Amino acid sequence: MAVVVQNVARADREVIDALGRAGVATVHEAQGRSGCLQSYMRPIYPGAQIAGSAVTISAPPGDNWMVHVAIEQLQAGDVLVLAPTSPCDTGYFGDLLATSAQARGCRGLIIDAGCRDVRDLTQMGFPVWSKAVSAQGTVKETLGSVNVPVICAGQSIAAGDVIVADDDGVAVVRRDEAAAVLARAEVRLAAEEAKRQRLAAGELGLDIYDMRGRLAEKGLKYV
Amino acid sequence: MAVVVQNVARADREVIDALGRAGVATVHEAQGRSGCLQSYMRPIYPGAQIAGSAVTISAPPGDNWMVHVAIEQLQAGDVLVLAPTSPCDTGYFGDLLATSAQARGCRGLIIDAGCRDVRDLTQMGFPVWSKAVSAQGTVKETLGSVNVPVICAGQSIAAGDVIVADDDGVAVVRRDEAAAVLARAEVRLAAEEAKRQRLAAGELGLDIYDMRGRLAEKGLKYV
Amino acid sequence: MAVVVQNVARADREVIDALGRAGVATVHEAQGRSGCLQSYMRPIYPGAQIAGSAVTISAPPGDNWMVHVAIEQLQAGDVLVLAPTSPCDTGYFGDLLATSAQARGCRGLIIDAGCRDVRDLTQMGFPVWSKAVSAQGTVKETLGSVNVPVICAGQSIAAGDVIVADDDGVAVVRRDEAAAVLARAEVRLAAEEAKRQRLAAGELGLDIYDMRGRLAEKGLKYV
Amino acid sequence: MAVVVQNVARADREVIDALGRAGVATVHEAQGRSGCLQSYMRPIYPGAQIAGSAVTISAPPGDNWMVHVAIEQLQAGDVLVLAPTSPCDTGYFGDLLATSAQARGCRGLIIDAGCRDVRDLTQMGFPVWSKAVSAQGTVKETLGSVNVPVICAGQSIAAGDVIVADDDGVAVVRRDEAAAVLARAEVRLAAEEAKRQRLAAGELGLDIYDMRGRLAEKGLKYV
Amino acid sequence: MAVVVQNVARADREVIDALGRAGVATVHEAQGRSGCLQSYMRPIYPGAQIAGSAVTISAPPGDNWMVHVAIEQLQAGDVLVLAPTSPCDTGYFGDLLATSAQARGCRGLIIDAGCRDVRDLTQMGFPVWSKAVSAQGTVKETLGSVNVPVICAGQSIAAGDVIVADDDGVAVVRRDEAAAVLARAEVRLAAEEAKRQRLAAGELGLDIYDMRGRLAEKGLKYV
Amino acid sequence: MAVVVQNVARADREVIDALGRAGVATVHEAQGRSGCLQSYMRPIYPGAQIAGSAVTISAPPGDNWMVHVAIEQLQAGDVLVLAPTSPCDTGYFGDLLATSAQARGCRGLIIDAGCRDVRDLTQMGFPVWSKAVSAQGTVKETLGSVNVPVICAGQSIAAGDVIVADDDGVAVVRRDEAAAVLARAEVRLAAEEAKRQRLAAGELGLDIYDMRGRLAEKGLKYV
Repeated sequence: MAVVVQNVARADREVIDALGRAGVATVHEAQGRSGCLQSYMRPIYPGAQIAGSAVTISAPPGDNWMVHVAIEQLQAGDVLVLAPTSPCDTGYFGDLLATSAQARGCRGLIIDAGCRDVRDLTQMGFPVWSKAVSAQGTVKETLGSVNVPVICAGQSIAAGDVIVADDDGVAVVRRDEAAAVLARAEVRLAAEEAKRQRLAAGELGLDIYDMRGRLAEKGLKYV
Repeated sequence: MAVVVQNVARADREVIDALGRAGVATVHEAQGRSGCLQSYMRPIYPGAQIAGSAVTISAPPGDNWMVHVAIEQLQAGDVLVLAPTSPCDTGYFGDLLATSAQARGCRGLIIDAGCRDVRDLTQMGFPVWSKAVSAQGTVKETLGSVNVPVICAGQSIAAGDVIVADDDGVAVVRRDEAAAVLARAEVRLAAEEAKRQRLAAGELGLDIYDMRGRLAEKGLKYV
Repeated sequence: MAVVVQNVARADREVIDALGRAGVATVHEAQGRSGCLQSYMRPIYPGAQIAGSAVTISAPPGDNWMVHVAIEQLQAGDVLVLAPTSPCDTGYFGDLLATSAQARGCRGLIIDAGCRDVRDLTQMGFPVWSKAVSAQGTVKETLGSVNVPVICAGQSIAAGDVIVADDDGVAVVRRDEAAAVLARAEVRLAAEEAKRQRLAAGELGLDIYDMRGRLAEKGLKYV
Repeated sequence: MAVVVQNVARADREVIDALGRAGVATVHEAQGRSGCLQSYMRPIYPGAQIAGSAVTISAPPGDNWMVHVAIEQLQAGDVLVLAPTSPCDTGYFGDLLATSAQARGCRGLIIDAGCRDVRDLTQMGFPVWSKAVSAQGTVKETLGSVNVPVICAGQSIAAGDVIVADDDGVAVVRRDEAAAVLARAEVRLAAEEAKRQRLAAGELGLDIYDMRGRLAEKGLKYV
Repeated sequence: MAVVVQNVARADREVIDALGRAGVATVHEAQGRSGCLQSYMRPIYPGAQIAGSAVTISAPPGDNWMVHVAIEQLQAGDVLVLAPTSPCDTGYFGDLLATSAQARGCRGLIIDAGCRDVRDLTQMGFPVWSKAVSAQGTVKETLGSVNVPVICAGQSIAAGDVIVADDDGVAVVRRDEAAAVLARAEVRLAAEEAKRQRLAAGELGLDIYDMRGRLAEKGLKYV
Repeated sequence: MAVVVQNVARADREVIDALGRAGVATVHEAQGRSGCLQSYMRPIYPGAQIAGSAVTISAPPGDNWMVHVAIEQLQAGDVLVLAPTSPCDTGYFGDLLATSAQARGCRGLIIDAGCRDVRDLTQMGFPVWSKAVSAQGTVKETLGSVNVPVICAGQSIAAGDVIVADDDGVAVVRRDEAAAVLARAEVRLAAEEAKRQRLAAGELGLDIYDMRGRLAEKGLKYV
């Protein structure tokens, strides 16, 4: 049951990077308001904005052995994604593992558990989105798996899926939908820019989106 | 049942601004240690300190249609207050709505749910106090109401009430009590300054507040 | 039952300061992965890193009277530790108490409840690790105790124990174990530095820690 | 600020009793899907179903003094409603207070905090809906108020409002709307009975409520 | 994006029923300690023990329209599984929907949100495992999907997967693994019965499982 | 660091049994309103009321190996107390372990984590107070300790301390204070009986406890 899947397909690097620039909110809208991890997944420092291919880790509670195994599977541009097999907030990941991951080109970590050494990680510029910050350490006794599908903070994530993460949280895009989602995201971004200018000039969303008739029809009363 | 109340009385602007300078902790003490919203309401960035008149929104879970309606009701110096009709953490509000609200002079948003685009909101200087940061989007299908009384994070808030918000959280002051609360807050601030200097010089609160007798009477033992 | 214990032994100041430099994660590892307070204890601002001798406070919910009593017991280099007798998030502590504590050389506060005036505390450089930020005030009606053993956020803390706190949270070290824990922490730090350089150079933890054999023996399969 | 309001108007007893028979779900629908307290308010034993006039208590955290004061204000058919001034789960209420309240005709307690002696309360048939069961006791040191408006578990409740509580939780009905809400509830109950029989016979809600056209118009696809 | 998948394969009825008799703990062990939904999913009454084929519902927060759509897709022996698209605890499901579902042979509901009318559901013998009990009603405005894969309380569930639920919570078994999991479960049950008798007779697990050597080797000390 | 302490002193059996009859609320009051475990510790079935000597287990998250070790240390009348070294809700304990513990005279389990097989445990009459019910299983890989002091749900518990548990939750009494606490509990019970009769007859606590003067002095106003 404990396996490491080695040959994982990734999406196109340019598509991934463009999804990262689009950001979590736009990307999740572009795929039909889906793909957001739960909102308790918060960045350990503000301002990071990344995208990358998921290298997934299914790990027992309080055991970070598989992180070492996963790091060998990293390629430049990847993002580690760790889901414990039962809810846990111990600190699976700190500055030594980040040093190792960063040396292999890893762009960050998404972990539905805890991380530690946040001051060092901040100084290194290695971003983490986690459920908790916790110094509580882990053991290396029980196997898990690498690059199998996991459920992380309410979303199913497969190895090679695209992870997008910024100050709004984390979203996942299926690898084979990445280009199509990007195309829709770019349409959306272009449309937003025009709206932003009209809103900044004082026009109302009620008028720009032509909402007044439908509101009246639904029965909204002004008193 | 879905109504927009249009002519809402506001408190005096100078009183509102002075309450903002006094801050949440002082204002809530000045009204008898009442009016604080629950402590899960946190600012999306540190350092903002505002006060303004509430424009309230009662919205269904996961539906931000009424925010557009409410923005038309904003006057310069107002603060949006959104309470969902059942607990929800989706991202009702982002940079486009903030652009629109800011264009009308809105000072910020208090939302017992989620907001998104926090990097943009931070750069715009549009502060939000929220239960969650969440990129998860909303629909525009079901009516709610604007400027009706709402319960937001444990406090009742009516349109035109004064909202005070800073790094300590959020407090509400009834519109018709604003001037009286401010007067008490200013007395309190003046008294605090004198105490601060004595404490900084090494005097003990035990002596400044003359507590030793009452502590002994209650039975406190030094061993 | 309400007592103030006055003559509390402290650990050696140099040991304390060195534990502070080692940090929470290292210190808790050095004592067998124990001593971390629960992960909901978060700093009110990033970057603080302290160690000090605990002056403990057992206080009723919503009553901060004993903080005044405890401040008289502070010596330079101490850290206040407050545990309510039942779960509570009201704001026991603000800038006036911090001014008083700081005047006596106190290095910070660990509180399994709320604090307030976080902007002022940040400007003063008085760090607090708390369960909540809350402006909600307290009363001064019911006695508690000072320098008795308390359970704070899942750890037992006695007066004079060494508190270490940084961005990763808070850990406690028994007073009479402080020197031994420090010795083990320093061994650990030295070993980590060598590993960090090897990892940064691209070596894998799998090889540095010689894990491949044991992983295979446990049954890990590469596919 | 600490007051006991003595002459509180109640709704008509027959209306109250009929609202109790209608139950929480029906009553809250009959008033436009509003009035439900938050879902963490759970009965201490299954099967109780009550309605009564609220006698409200605003109490400090961990202090049940005002419960004694409130009991004197009870009339037969009333329900006690306690809201702490900050979140708290201590056990404010047990079998002695229940004995006293029951002797005065009180039908139950709604408490956004803890209660205890649940075995005794169950045997006495004195129902409680609470946030927690907790043996942790309280003090009698700080005043609060009785029969002032409170916010309890997310709803504003005034003295004399009608409380309805059953296995689904708790709802509040404004005193002066009680008769109108009851009328709508009874219409609803009558309509539900007819629908229940059709559904039990195998008809689909899709057909009974004529939903197919609107679903298709919105874009639902069958594949 | 809103679809109803109509022709869903189910597992063999005898296998499903046998998995139900084996129960959640045994079934999840038989598939490698996987498949359990999160532990906040609790039955509304004790003692129910079911298994059935999942008919899945992806629904917006606070909108139960799709439940009506899903009921048409039910076959005898099915179990409804509802996952909201963002966290929500409103009461999507009550006695009328249960009457309709039961008329079609549905065995119960798994819902990562709220249900209501729990007294009626209990009397009907229609079991529900839910995140919350809540009378708060829903609207019928926004489409969702039926029989698409959902993430429910931390597990991925596809239409036709086997749901097993009892007092310990809920587990999911992939449809095409159901027979194999059952075979392993039955081996496990047979082995447990023998162990139960030895343990009841006073033999120790330390001896039955031959643990003493490995404990000593790992370093356990008796003092 | 992994030890089993074998010769643990117990309190007097008659004292223990009498503390059990007194119950959690009374016992915690008799020791100065202290000793209650946090209120999330709930019984898996109603009506159990036990007392016994603690056999403590400190276990890693998700690893129940030490339960087997602890069972060998049980004497008739003991209660198992398990605290994980970091927060965890997996199901450490089920019917096989309960069979083994019961065979040795164990009266129940207090576990700051999950248990499973609750239907079987209920039928066996083996009571458990836990943080969660969870079928999620554990491994047997990492050592912990038995009969060392633990922090369990907010209380420090040493081997041989007396555990009292009933529908109100769990309390701990220090072994060497057990007789004194019992004496105070019995005084309290006797006093309560007299009060209960007066309250049942309609006398008010305000009068029985002579509160009116002190309330007026504190400033309570009747309006």
